[in-house]
Amino acid sequence: MRLNDTTDMALRVMIYAATRVDRLFTIDQLVAVYRFPRSTVMKVVNALTRGDFLAAQRGRAGGLRLARPADQISVGAVVRHLESDFGLVECMRTGNQCIITCQCRLIAPLQRAMEAFLEVLDGCSIADIALTPADFPLIERADVRNRLNEGLG
Amino acid sequence: MRLNDTTDMALRVMIYAATRVDRLFTIDQLVAVYRFPRSTVMKVVNALTRGDFLAAQRGRAGGLRLARPADQISVGAVVRHLESDFGLVECMRTGNQCIITCQCRLIAPLQRAMEAFLEVLDGCSIADIALTPADFPLIERADVRNRLNEGLG
Repeated sequence: MRLNDTTDMALRVMIYAATRVDRLFTIDQLVAVYRFPRSTVMKVVNALTRGDFLAAQRGRAGGLRLARPADQISVGAVVRHLESDFGLVECMRTGNQCIITCQCRLIAPLQRAMEAFLEVLDGCSIADIALTPADFPLIERADVRNRLNEGLG
Repeated sequence: MRLNDTTDMALRVMIYAATRVDRLFTIDQLVAVYRFPRSTVMKVVNALTRGDFLAAQRGRAGGLRLARPADQISVGAVVRHLESDFGLVECMRTGNQCIITCQCRLIAPLQRAMEAFLEVLDGCSIADIALTPADFPLIERADVRNRLNEGLG
């Protein structure tokens, strides 16, 4: 049982966003930090922006930030938004050919189990899973350089 | 988010087994009922037998049956036994390369969510999801023919 790779990546983007509440961040930084393909990062960031989890500020000094305070965004909401497929078994998906679907008594408990899974994540906010800038040393070093350059500029 | 196909198939085999508590059943019947590939059915039946969910009776009049009463086998136990991969995200799997794994605060809530999912299924028995022979018309008709033949034999 797995979350899809896009959801996995989106959660890591949100962890990064929650760790950098004081500064905008860029897609380049996400690519550098997590070593994800740029095209996939762009797809994930678009989905998070559409879902009102991230906000994009355009322009030369633009970048990305959390759309709302981290304690007002639940992990469950991100997973529900990103995970396109909650079809745990064939009969929950399109193209189902199982011959007992109409009578099946397994679908309801599986749906209850899925809800229980999501409810735990609904109770966990992005603030709860935020890290510190020191957990992203690559970016922290770049920030220090930028601040020094701004001071000298 | 999906269960793997083997788990899906195993649950359907258990539904069939619980529906036929009065008679042994065969791999041929499972292939006929569900239209699964024979090799996959054999793999699933082997896993269920190893897990003490099904018992095999050898010999000419042999076949398969539930290893224990249906109300003493939980859906959760079958899922835990069959689902080889509970690695919801990369860091829960082998070959993980995520750079924030050591500090990550998302793993614990994901594990709690997974447990909540399985606990719901632990509370549901195979008896709870059993159907009636009439839900498997193909096999019911064959049974009637066999009983008539036995009566005439």
